[in-house]
Amino acid sequence: MDHALYTKYPLSVVNSLTRQKEVFEPINPPLVGMYLCGPTVYGDPHLGHARSAVNFDVIFRYLAFLGYKVRYVRNITDVGHLEDEVAGAGEDKVSKKARLEKLEPMEIVQLYTYRYRDALRLLNVLPPSIEPSATGHIIEQIEIIQSILKHGYAYEVNGSIYFDLGKYAQEQEYGQISGKVLEDLQSGSRQTEGLDEKRSPHDFALWKKANPEHIMRWDSPWGEGFPGWHLECTAMSTKYLGETFDIHGGGLDLQFPHHEAEVAQSYGAFHNHPANYWIHHNLITIDGQKMSKSKGNFITLDQLFTGDHALLVQAYSPATIRFFILQAHYRSPVDFSNEALQAAEKGLTRLLNAQETLGKLNHQSGTIDEKLNKEINQLCEQCYWEMSDDFNTAKLIAVLFDLSSKINGFNHQKLDLAAISTETFQHLRKTFQDFISEVLGLQAEATNDTQQKEGLIELLISIRNQARANKDFATSDQIRDQLKELGVQLKDEKAGSTTYSFTN
Amino acid sequence: MDHALYTKYPLSVVNSLTRQKEVFEPINPPLVGMYLCGPTVYGDPHLGHARSAVNFDVIFRYLAFLGYKVRYVRNITDVGHLEDEVAGAGEDKVSKKARLEKLEPMEIVQLYTYRYRDALRLLNVLPPSIEPSATGHIIEQIEIIQSILKHGYAYEVNGSIYFDLGKYAQEQEYGQISGKVLEDLQSGSRQTEGLDEKRSPHDFALWKKANPEHIMRWDSPWGEGFPGWHLECTAMSTKYLGETFDIHGGGLDLQFPHHEAEVAQSYGAFHNHPANYWIHHNLITIDGQKMSKSKGNFITLDQLFTGDHALLVQAYSPATIRFFILQAHYRSPVDFSNEALQAAEKGLTRLLNAQETLGKLNHQSGTIDEKLNKEINQLCEQCYWEMSDDFNTAKLIAVLFDLSSKINGFNHQKLDLAAISTETFQHLRKTFQDFISEVLGLQAEATNDTQQKEGLIELLISIRNQARANKDFATSDQIRDQLKELGVQLKDEKAGSTTYSFTN
Repeated sequence: MDHALYTKYPLSVVNSLTRQKEVFEPINPPLVGMYLCGPTVYGDPHLGHARSAVNFDVIFRYLAFLGYKVRYVRNITDVGHLEDEVAGAGEDKVSKKARLEKLEPMEIVQLYTYRYRDALRLLNVLPPSIEPSATGHIIEQIEIIQSILKHGYAYEVNGSIYFDLGKYAQEQEYGQISGKVLEDLQSGSRQTEGLDEKRSPHDFALWKKANPEHIMRWDSPWGEGFPGWHLECTAMSTKYLGETFDIHGGGLDLQFPHHEAEVAQSYGAFHNHPANYWIHHNLITIDGQKMSKSKGNFITLDQLFTGDHALLVQAYSPATIRFFILQAHYRSPVDFSNEALQAAEKGLTRLLNAQETLGKLNHQSGTIDEKLNKEINQLCEQCYWEMSDDFNTAKLIAVLFDLSSKINGFNHQKLDLAAISTETFQHLRKTFQDFISEVLGLQAEATNDTQQKEGLIELLISIRNQARANKDFATSDQIRDQLKELGVQLKDEKAGSTTYSFTN
Repeated sequence: MDHALYTKYPLSVVNSLTRQKEVFEPINPPLVGMYLCGPTVYGDPHLGHARSAVNFDVIFRYLAFLGYKVRYVRNITDVGHLEDEVAGAGEDKVSKKARLEKLEPMEIVQLYTYRYRDALRLLNVLPPSIEPSATGHIIEQIEIIQSILKHGYAYEVNGSIYFDLGKYAQEQEYGQISGKVLEDLQSGSRQTEGLDEKRSPHDFALWKKANPEHIMRWDSPWGEGFPGWHLECTAMSTKYLGETFDIHGGGLDLQFPHHEAEVAQSYGAFHNHPANYWIHHNLITIDGQKMSKSKGNFITLDQLFTGDHALLVQAYSPATIRFFILQAHYRSPVDFSNEALQAAEKGLTRLLNAQETLGKLNHQSGTIDEKLNKEINQLCEQCYWEMSDDFNTAKLIAVLFDLSSKINGFNHQKLDLAAISTETFQHLRKTFQDFISEVLGLQAEATNDTQQKEGLIELLISIRNQARANKDFATSDQIRDQLKELGVQLKDEKAGSTTYSFTN
């Protein structure tokens, strides 16, 4: 019988809901429904966006690798959460004269959505199965509000609808995910927005009445307005995955209030809990500090890829950023520093070089060294077990480094390749390849090509310098002229070195 | 005073609405609003998609080049038009048991939307300002239906709403764009869909009641249903560009019934005509026949890029496809054949080589040849005039070929570069560069990099062969060894030649 890998290597995940590690049991195996809270698209994507997308990309990849058939929904937040920023950026400049002169929030949304997708493509993040947007699901949000109102967990004030957390907390335990206690919240700092309308300061808006100057607005049973931020995720996850689905993901910073609000909304609308497993990734700090625009330590992905930021001593490739993120377990904090990025760059090169070396090794069986044979097989098996243990990419990468040492040992004949069996060698090849490429999504840089080209030019310069030293000017001129034809202009500097530039 | 280019080279366009060439006068210069009917995303993108996107990409680029500030909206049709296909593809397999087991049309939509965007990126088509989807604008469509109903140009039957073309035609001239006459249509072949409900066979659905098995459905004042295909473009163009905007584009095949329906809907809802200029591109045939799946002459872009289709004798690069499309004026038909594609490939290479040559020419003024000087300047000016004459890329490319001949003449000293003035040379450089790169969006292939690399390796092989002939084995071994380190394995063949392969 052909078993799927998920029966051979059953998956455990740490569930934020129970704070325990649990065996993963999807509602309808092999189907898995997974929802991740995506970005709010009003600015350039940064390291935090990369961590979220990369962590869940690997979860998506590993679930598929194990044989699950995953529907992965990652949304785009294009209203509600960003409304103030967009309005603040241009409202004063809005002319009432012509429609076209108005600031169009969707143009901003589109620009940053493209930038987000471009950055993720460079990071080798697979596209999700569905990438829905909040503005694309206004009707669905209105329907959920109607259901919550009908069940008595929300109230209308002046064209706005608020969720009644007090009533909810009488029936359900508030704060299962975040550990927050409602009473503490209410005695703490008060949210000023809509305070005069809300029964309790921590009630949250499901629908906000639009002021006259508000650009993004839709008709609703309560007049023109726009949905509250929390609601979109309930609407889109329900529409594409059902009222209760398998995995809900997001960053730790979304546990409160966003995910608590989702739980409350689902109960209010469907009397259901939305997801069986809640998976939260940890955050990224910079030199131990929270990343923020005001601290000036805010680095966009584009700045990382180009090195164009005061805090960066060099550019880092998308693959380096990806590897840097994956070297930590998703639940561990990651501290950004140039040193850590440089170490990741070296580590990634080591792994990819070992992968290349492995591809070139020619195996022929000789006398089997049972100990070595077993050791290699166990390391291969460990790759599966580490990933099946709550997606532990940190430990997986450590095992892959151990395997790299073996591969380099075979290559330098410090270990005898003939001493492992054909099956073991094939197991090694497949496992190493699968986990690096398919599961971790690591790939040789596009810049490899550039590095190779630069190496070729430097070799030609060095041959030309030797020719000149030997007074073989025919050869040195030939190299210079033919390089020029190939678009490479040599320049002999006064100090004696030769530099080059590309002419096309 | 700094005039925008559009005042220096005023634009004329052939307006499908009037069938005349007209001076282009936007409503609020320098702002221009442009809407293009985008793809229905239920299959792989093909040549027809490429033509539409590339033609309007160049229109978008040239408007911006002239100094207009363009808001370019290109939609994604993800409901209405594709519903039948999606349902047909999987409805039978739908299980009622679990939500996840259902065929989810949005998953199909997402897949083909990604593929469409990927193909367009390869074709160097710029993203539009806004790329809205039909399912994202259901509320806006419902609002337009309500307005049309209020004005009396539509009627409800059993939860479906139909546009009343008869009433419309009493007040307005039907068929302004397509030249169709309503009476002829009604005596011709009858549309069977909803025939028992419609007052007249050519009335069209604004809203269709959803049958129980229908997956894509939304609540509306008339019960659960989904919008008719024509309506989405009226809703999205109005929302982002206003009730009347500057340019509405699409393929000739969309004139009837789609664009006529848009015109009727706008009148019914707003008593306005939607767009001042209607621009329609012609279609692509294959060996003189219409492209269709049933004829087996249907070629996807991916097949073109890889050469993987029985009708293709080779692969064609995205840049070749783009150039092939632009060699024809957008209003002319284009017939696909391998010969035409191969000719385009050669033509593109000729232009890009001339561009490269021009970049390397070093100009120093000598005695000016007034005739030559004037001729170059006139050709440069002609580039602007050809494009300002209804975006005539065919004639622009012919002028660029003329300029290429001059550039090659200068390079081979058949023409005296010193005989043109510095201003003329700078004008030539800027014009040639601007029209090739910025306006036509032509760029050297990614393979240029590969070609350069191959050139470098071949140069090294040739130097090594000379060293071997001179018995300078230190140099020949150095080249072989360092190439190997760079991932290039040399192999000396028995016949005396040297071949190479990449080891990574």
